[in-house]
Amino acid sequence: MSTSAQPKQIAAVLYGGKDLRIEERVAMPPKAGEVQVAVKATGLCGSDLHYYSHGRNGDFALQAPMVLGHEAAGIITAVGPGVTGLAPGQRVAIECGIMCKNCRYCKAGRYNLCKGMRFCSSAKTFPHLDGTLQTYLNHAADLMFPLPDDCTYEMAALAEPLSVLIHASRRAQFSSGQTVLVFGVGAIGLLAAALASAQGASKIVAVDINETRLAFAKNNGFVSETHCLPMGDRSKSPEEQLKAAKDTILSVVTGFGEPDGFDVVYECTGAAPCIQMSIHAAITGGRVMLVGMGTGTLMLPVAAAATREVDILGSFRYANTYPEALALLGSGKLSKIEKLVTHRVPLSDSVSAFELLAKGQDAEGNMALKVVITGP
Amino acid sequence: MSTSAQPKQIAAVLYGGKDLRIEERVAMPPKAGEVQVAVKATGLCGSDLHYYSHGRNGDFALQAPMVLGHEAAGIITAVGPGVTGLAPGQRVAIECGIMCKNCRYCKAGRYNLCKGMRFCSSAKTFPHLDGTLQTYLNHAADLMFPLPDDCTYEMAALAEPLSVLIHASRRAQFSSGQTVLVFGVGAIGLLAAALASAQGASKIVAVDINETRLAFAKNNGFVSETHCLPMGDRSKSPEEQLKAAKDTILSVVTGFGEPDGFDVVYECTGAAPCIQMSIHAAITGGRVMLVGMGTGTLMLPVAAAATREVDILGSFRYANTYPEALALLGSGKLSKIEKLVTHRVPLSDSVSAFELLAKGQDAEGNMALKVVITGP
Amino acid sequence: MSTSAQPKQIAAVLYGGKDLRIEERVAMPPKAGEVQVAVKATGLCGSDLHYYSHGRNGDFALQAPMVLGHEAAGIITAVGPGVTGLAPGQRVAIECGIMCKNCRYCKAGRYNLCKGMRFCSSAKTFPHLDGTLQTYLNHAADLMFPLPDDCTYEMAALAEPLSVLIHASRRAQFSSGQTVLVFGVGAIGLLAAALASAQGASKIVAVDINETRLAFAKNNGFVSETHCLPMGDRSKSPEEQLKAAKDTILSVVTGFGEPDGFDVVYECTGAAPCIQMSIHAAITGGRVMLVGMGTGTLMLPVAAAATREVDILGSFRYANTYPEALALLGSGKLSKIEKLVTHRVPLSDSVSAFELLAKGQDAEGNMALKVVITGP
Amino acid sequence: MSTSAQPKQIAAVLYGGKDLRIEERVAMPPKAGEVQVAVKATGLCGSDLHYYSHGRNGDFALQAPMVLGHEAAGIITAVGPGVTGLAPGQRVAIECGIMCKNCRYCKAGRYNLCKGMRFCSSAKTFPHLDGTLQTYLNHAADLMFPLPDDCTYEMAALAEPLSVLIHASRRAQFSSGQTVLVFGVGAIGLLAAALASAQGASKIVAVDINETRLAFAKNNGFVSETHCLPMGDRSKSPEEQLKAAKDTILSVVTGFGEPDGFDVVYECTGAAPCIQMSIHAAITGGRVMLVGMGTGTLMLPVAAAATREVDILGSFRYANTYPEALALLGSGKLSKIEKLVTHRVPLSDSVSAFELLAKGQDAEGNMALKVVITGP
Repeated sequence: MSTSAQPKQIAAVLYGGKDLRIEERVAMPPKAGEVQVAVKATGLCGSDLHYYSHGRNGDFALQAPMVLGHEAAGIITAVGPGVTGLAPGQRVAIECGIMCKNCRYCKAGRYNLCKGMRFCSSAKTFPHLDGTLQTYLNHAADLMFPLPDDCTYEMAALAEPLSVLIHASRRAQFSSGQTVLVFGVGAIGLLAAALASAQGASKIVAVDINETRLAFAKNNGFVSETHCLPMGDRSKSPEEQLKAAKDTILSVVTGFGEPDGFDVVYECTGAAPCIQMSIHAAITGGRVMLVGMGTGTLMLPVAAAATREVDILGSFRYANTYPEALALLGSGKLSKIEKLVTHRVPLSDSVSAFELLAKGQDAEGNMALKVVITGP
Repeated sequence: MSTSAQPKQIAAVLYGGKDLRIEERVAMPPKAGEVQVAVKATGLCGSDLHYYSHGRNGDFALQAPMVLGHEAAGIITAVGPGVTGLAPGQRVAIECGIMCKNCRYCKAGRYNLCKGMRFCSSAKTFPHLDGTLQTYLNHAADLMFPLPDDCTYEMAALAEPLSVLIHASRRAQFSSGQTVLVFGVGAIGLLAAALASAQGASKIVAVDINETRLAFAKNNGFVSETHCLPMGDRSKSPEEQLKAAKDTILSVVTGFGEPDGFDVVYECTGAAPCIQMSIHAAITGGRVMLVGMGTGTLMLPVAAAATREVDILGSFRYANTYPEALALLGSGKLSKIEKLVTHRVPLSDSVSAFELLAKGQDAEGNMALKVVITGP
Repeated sequence: MSTSAQPKQIAAVLYGGKDLRIEERVAMPPKAGEVQVAVKATGLCGSDLHYYSHGRNGDFALQAPMVLGHEAAGIITAVGPGVTGLAPGQRVAIECGIMCKNCRYCKAGRYNLCKGMRFCSSAKTFPHLDGTLQTYLNHAADLMFPLPDDCTYEMAALAEPLSVLIHASRRAQFSSGQTVLVFGVGAIGLLAAALASAQGASKIVAVDINETRLAFAKNNGFVSETHCLPMGDRSKSPEEQLKAAKDTILSVVTGFGEPDGFDVVYECTGAAPCIQMSIHAAITGGRVMLVGMGTGTLMLPVAAAATREVDILGSFRYANTYPEALALLGSGKLSKIEKLVTHRVPLSDSVSAFELLAKGQDAEGNMALKVVITGP
Repeated sequence: MSTSAQPKQIAAVLYGGKDLRIEERVAMPPKAGEVQVAVKATGLCGSDLHYYSHGRNGDFALQAPMVLGHEAAGIITAVGPGVTGLAPGQRVAIECGIMCKNCRYCKAGRYNLCKGMRFCSSAKTFPHLDGTLQTYLNHAADLMFPLPDDCTYEMAALAEPLSVLIHASRRAQFSSGQTVLVFGVGAIGLLAAALASAQGASKIVAVDINETRLAFAKNNGFVSETHCLPMGDRSKSPEEQLKAAKDTILSVVTGFGEPDGFDVVYECTGAAPCIQMSIHAAITGGRVMLVGMGTGTLMLPVAAAATREVDILGSFRYANTYPEALALLGSGKLSKIEKLVTHRVPLSDSVSAFELLAKGQDAEGNMALKVVITGP
């Protein structure tokens, strides 16, 4: 097939820290088992920002130019050989991680732990797999999930971070009627709260160090109660601040009465003091879900966790979550998360989107929570 | 203590089929470990009606006069010796089954299977334990559950039938995003639907043979889709009707597309054809919850269940559900179930309440779904 | 590549009922992702026998000549392009079902429910996939499981039926210390007993209608207690026989004392009376595992199951069981199952192996339990 | 009833650190719901030794003289009013923790987390509840578990520490075929290994700093492989020792090949370096069970756990384990744990038993693993 027939497209290609270039490329036809999708919406997340700012994300450094973006939805424009059940014109959410399908984890349904996974826009594997910040993406057909009628591309792009929380809630064995404490109400924490509500949480409390974020969470109905950790009070020493923060958590927990904590604590900050406090904030027999990833090694009150059987559980990416994410998005039970998207920027202007995200707020001083890159 | 100081009260005492008498009694003070509750609301259910109509419920026949009622809430009027954490004036829901606390089931958290359980208003054990259709009830303090501020007595009385569904949903391992089919939308089926919605079901479909009930379910937002089984069409033979009913279910299931059925089917009718159809209506790998209790032995498509790993699970009463029930009632996520209570009758007029329930509708032709006996 | 370089081989090809032919074929080199295995041992099972006897197995009829056999182990003779981690000379067990890897079941770890599965020696899909009754088999590399050093080919061939029971025990959530009742002690029932023992069952009881099989089970240490159902007593009517059988089960159960049945019942006969009795033989809160597949629809005491929360669970094939099966075989904890293999027949003499299996015993009157076809 | 009719008995009463006195007491008749047991065997454990040596165990200091001992079995000598199902002459194991039966944990089957639990021989609650180091113990009838015929008193006394491991294995969701690493092979670690074997572990490896203990574990068939941590090598700095220890663990793990660790790690030392290494020694997706209780707060490689979904789970005492423990002891699957009991001392000589345990070995240099106090 002649490439002259292929449509032109643009891609936001990262060459290194702060070196993001909008390039013209030729869109290739999808291979066997793939579909081609016109990407309509991509949400930017913290790891995208890390790559943009530093050319690396933790241990994983860029080894060649790479397209960022992995929270995405679009419309199918072509299907490759052998693809059934999908057709051009279909609106889909895109799951970006390609699992090996042959290892013990893939076969057992825990493909998020697959050591052979190649993830669009991650530099962990090489050659890197380009992400969704391009006009057209060719990607495995079995990782395309049709959108419910009432679900916009933008909401469908949120299926990715929502998947992180669905996975975490499954690992937490969250069940209806339980109480939830969320540490950190950025986009992930807000999704944790919104999901908990859709799953029948009876009480959802948020803790953060940022009053603006807490106010956003409260005013938009994500949580019923908020507590600001007094960590920014420069009149106090770090130790005094930490002590005051712990007292705050203690008062939140004891405000409960008989139960001595929350059934599930979603730790979304990755900050050592919050992880430590999570253990004390969980009910005896409860669970701490480590959703935020922070410093590798830290002091933990292990005996306090063990003797109260507070489980300390990590949650890495997600597996088998897209159908649930889209079903929930289509059911209207998560309608409040539309408010997460504070800014929309066209693909051609991706650099300014990253700069906005880096600053955390726009020129008018509005908080930049979730910035979405829009396709053509 | 002199009984002359005890308050007078009335009780609705069943002496046999259709022989319910309002009697004056002296209220006794609570014993050690008990509290005395002024019963404010009691919902009537099918087993109450069976006792009222026939003097028996299935295998269990009245052996002595007994007070009916076990879906109840009230206000504490006195606490017996040794009771801590409860005080007069506290509003509570009443869990009516007193478990032995010593058997393997009680100790393992499955006290609903306790063979020594004594249940208020059930004639299974003798001497019978009186139910809640009396002004004051003395009952074990550990079976009293304080009401959330926003929860009325009437809603709290619904904590009992709601518990049946909470227990069923736990056994079904229902999780958010799943789809639900409900066979039979009487009070229990409607509660199944309302609970599924609060737990994040993505789709809830109802099937019944009664158009009025289906319309009620649809119009009040319990379900998004209803299907009437053509079982009352007298121009057709029973076989033809059953065939048509099966075709209806088949069309509901195949209307789904790729998945071949519903993740969870709540069978709330106890009718043999519905139990059979439940198996075909469940998705491969899904679960059929037998909530309605019907005829003992029936024809089941066992191989169809086994080769598709459709689990056939019973659900008997409930255990450890009241805290969740009240937490959900207090959270507002079940507000639509207020509509279940179609009629309220004072305790002194209990006979007319049972007659209303027996007829199924009031003089104006309004469906009697849940009739609540109100206390003083 | 010239096929003249390919080794010659023989295969036992089924052309129809009782029409099994030993043919010479040319062995093809393995394709990408495949390995070539010299098959050293294949156990014959009931479905092989059905195909051999009738040219069909239940609903699935032969549409073209097909090689039987799917309980197999061998040694790798060649690896196809792209295969890593396996090399010629490696001893492996062969998992015969090729799952689609793309459907919701495959991705969630329940690939036994994959509707697109193609299974060697099954006529369910067309073109049929040839089984292991041939000198060389080319098969997906990811379905090859290296043998522990102490595991013979013959034992490794048993990894397949053992997988059926491992899957069933997982679905039964069997845990150590529990009691087990096995209905039917053919090869599958004996494996159920052996596995239960390796998993820490505290008591294993067998029920069958065949004294010889029961004696085999008892004498070889598979079970501690056996009971023969008096179903063959021709002096009694079928109803009397069934009544006597139920009384036998009842006495087994009540012999227990306080618990009212067995924690797990493995129903391995598929016979209606046994399935019915399984429900009564399970402890309140226990599980009936339907391992044997019988008539589609039958009378079940559903209320007796539901009110006692006895779960009725099917078990279809297996998923993710080979590693466990081989680990157990290698650990020596299943050494008694070596006694299952009563006869060994060379591939070239496959017809006599099937005839032996059909008769159920050899010329000397020895029971034919598991017949193994041996490779070169 | 006149106490003059009561039998005399002796008790080993602790008055403070190193102040254990053998006293004569009068045995009281059992109260309602209680039985009286002649204690035949009590195993001593680490917490008994702490109380003996220091008059306290961690946070819990003796406030009044108390009888030690809580791993015990005996024979019923009298039953109190209302007790059914038990009779004098019955051999029983004694579960020593009396749960409140009314709290959320007791009702949900997690009574080990009951905040109102009173535990024989623990100074956590006051008045203290005397332990089993006396001739007769009166104790709740529902905490008596009849012994299987083949189970000696001594083995039955081991049902208590065995319960700790049964509980841990349940929380670890251990399943047959899995691999197990045990840190620390004192009595608890050896029981972990023995239980894992009875439950079908395919590989059990032990790590300790003590060659003698490792040799005992290996020679008596508890584990198949042992590794000594080079922590006592005084020619190296603590850092070098720790580094060498980590290298040892790493080599154990990588010796495995493809899987990157053990399915379940039982950490039975409570030592910080071992807890840290546990996380690295667990397979991706595996579980670390914190069985040993050590220092409250320590450095943990949290990110390494979280990103590999290695669950960090505490295990506190046990619930609903005695029936399983006794069933396993009666089944013969744990016969090797008879070797745990290295010394037997009569009750009247309890002081020397504690001194022996404190020294860790007897005059002949034989390791004192489990010392059992024998009754009359």
